[in-house]
Amino acid sequence: MCSYCTEDNLEGMCITDDNRLAIESRIASLVCEWSTMPTHRPIPPSCHAVLDAVISQALSSSEGGKRLRALLALAAYASFGGTSSQHEAILDIACALEVFQTAALVHDDIIDDSDLRRGKPSAHRALEQNTGSVTVGRGLGVMLGDLLATAGIGIVNQAARELANASEVTTAFLTMQHEVEIGQILDLAVEQAPLDDAKALASSSLEVFRWKTASYTTIAPIELAMLSAGIPATQARRTALSIGEPLGLAFQLEDDLIDVIGSSRTSGKPVGGDIREGKRTVLLADALELADTPERDELITLFRAQTRNEAQVHRVIELFTSTGAIERSRQRIAHLWDQTLEAIASCELEHCQQNILTEACAGFVPDLTRR
Amino acid sequence: MCSYCTEDNLEGMCITDDNRLAIESRIASLVCEWSTMPTHRPIPPSCHAVLDAVISQALSSSEGGKRLRALLALAAYASFGGTSSQHEAILDIACALEVFQTAALVHDDIIDDSDLRRGKPSAHRALEQNTGSVTVGRGLGVMLGDLLATAGIGIVNQAARELANASEVTTAFLTMQHEVEIGQILDLAVEQAPLDDAKALASSSLEVFRWKTASYTTIAPIELAMLSAGIPATQARRTALSIGEPLGLAFQLEDDLIDVIGSSRTSGKPVGGDIREGKRTVLLADALELADTPERDELITLFRAQTRNEAQVHRVIELFTSTGAIERSRQRIAHLWDQTLEAIASCELEHCQQNILTEACAGFVPDLTRR
Repeated sequence: MCSYCTEDNLEGMCITDDNRLAIESRIASLVCEWSTMPTHRPIPPSCHAVLDAVISQALSSSEGGKRLRALLALAAYASFGGTSSQHEAILDIACALEVFQTAALVHDDIIDDSDLRRGKPSAHRALEQNTGSVTVGRGLGVMLGDLLATAGIGIVNQAARELANASEVTTAFLTMQHEVEIGQILDLAVEQAPLDDAKALASSSLEVFRWKTASYTTIAPIELAMLSAGIPATQARRTALSIGEPLGLAFQLEDDLIDVIGSSRTSGKPVGGDIREGKRTVLLADALELADTPERDELITLFRAQTRNEAQVHRVIELFTSTGAIERSRQRIAHLWDQTLEAIASCELEHCQQNILTEACAGFVPDLTRR
Repeated sequence: MCSYCTEDNLEGMCITDDNRLAIESRIASLVCEWSTMPTHRPIPPSCHAVLDAVISQALSSSEGGKRLRALLALAAYASFGGTSSQHEAILDIACALEVFQTAALVHDDIIDDSDLRRGKPSAHRALEQNTGSVTVGRGLGVMLGDLLATAGIGIVNQAARELANASEVTTAFLTMQHEVEIGQILDLAVEQAPLDDAKALASSSLEVFRWKTASYTTIAPIELAMLSAGIPATQARRTALSIGEPLGLAFQLEDDLIDVIGSSRTSGKPVGGDIREGKRTVLLADALELADTPERDELITLFRAQTRNEAQVHRVIELFTSTGAIERSRQRIAHLWDQTLEAIASCELEHCQQNILTEACAGFVPDLTRR
């Protein structure tokens, strides 16, 4: 019997639930530590209220995530032979991924001027309300994103000292940050892409997913875990890409699909949001490619408009369905998941280690794997 | 004769000019490296134009700084016995300080919605013009700030490997980032501070300067240089604080003074900008404290208003002068500069090493030291 499982089929579940609790409480204490004043110097009295608002927003924005990235990091660490003596350090690395995600989401909501995140007011909107000033609230939102980004790499820099490949762990985390930032820039660029070349739009969108999503969602958790477990950098990178790249694309495709057809996954966002915002997605690209001429013209007109009302959002969903774009996305996801499973299989792990990793990966495509 | 000077009184100048050239060219190549796509994968064709715009904005935003922070780091490294064999690594640390500053300024201009920076359009404004969209431009501005912040710590993480105290160097840089972020949050908080307690406003503003300015302007350059030269962390921190804290406050006070009375220093911003924006400064706090009741009421009315026109800006400048607030700021700066010189003297450096450090520090308060 392996050291990770005490009973035959429950292995993944028990570990996952325990890990989830550990992640949640560690994130709260790390975020608190990294949002407060750096020393014991007194806070200027007139600044107390605002600083308190930022700290409590940092904690609030950090709550409510599904922790898929952190869980994947912990699972991959166990699967690739990480020792339990470094449990605290790898837990911190896992939490740093979540803190970085929160930082990215805080800025993302400013970029998109979103009102909601995970079912609550977005950070800058909440800070606007708290300070009674749109300017100050948005400013504090920008700074909260910066603060949490520094927290992420700060946590990694501290934890890595206890781990194998300390320097490579920090470097890999920074490479991930860089990739996500490039991905976000490409994502903004795609929003301005023309709609008349559907194939180019689909491949551009998938390429953007590689950078803006797969980078930190699936590739980095596996790479950081493998490095932390002592696996050499080149091998860790290669394996993380082979598993994480298809999995990350599948995750983003499923996320976009859920936005249109709903899901058991609670995203905290209203259905049809991407369409309402006129976002360029692979679904849209596929619909444009598969549509007949009148439908294509209709879609282009709908997406070139400044805004789309409820009836128009529903018409787009109808067209995504009738053209077969939704079905094609499902096929894309299934194919990418097969690639993920093949990549996991080629690692030749022990049966139970492979199960732990597969279970964590399956969490990213629940609508496919639990169908 | 010491290894740093070949002629008696020219030592500082020659080194400074050489360093300035080296800094300028290294910043450009580092920023380029950290703004481009992370691998040789093809860029989606529809994203080319936007990515190019971001890269050229990254370079443009990085130009035009006085490089005082980088020059201080190089001077402090030489003064505290750093060896020339690690010259490339300490140059990168020095450049990382400038790259971090650019990142902070890009976000600062978004927070303040500033049109200009260093005499050119601010980054988000330039990107708005380039993409023809306020939303996309501001989004790209947020991401450019993030990208440059990652570049800063990425450069340090890479260079530190070649230096003494590698891990402490990276940690000190992250501590600095955290301090600046807290400082920016406090700065936004002070903007909402009441105007009726002038003494509290002055001490709050000075405390904010410690975090938002002295942290990265004068403390971190000295601390990073000392760590890089192999000096133990506790000593480096203590010395950097003793020299850098008064110097950083003096720098910010002189910066605020220049905004009101102009200077030989070209700030690229129009005179009176802080007053126009209604910023809470130490100058304002001193004026409120020193004014008689009618003048105080006039100032409070002027600063509580949403906007101030040209005539009102000039009236405020008049009041800053007539109350003696400008003279008190000059005295504050002179006193802080004396503290800086005492702290340098207490390091008991060789004569010429002390000169190099003093010269670099004097660059932060030119209107005082070159009067």
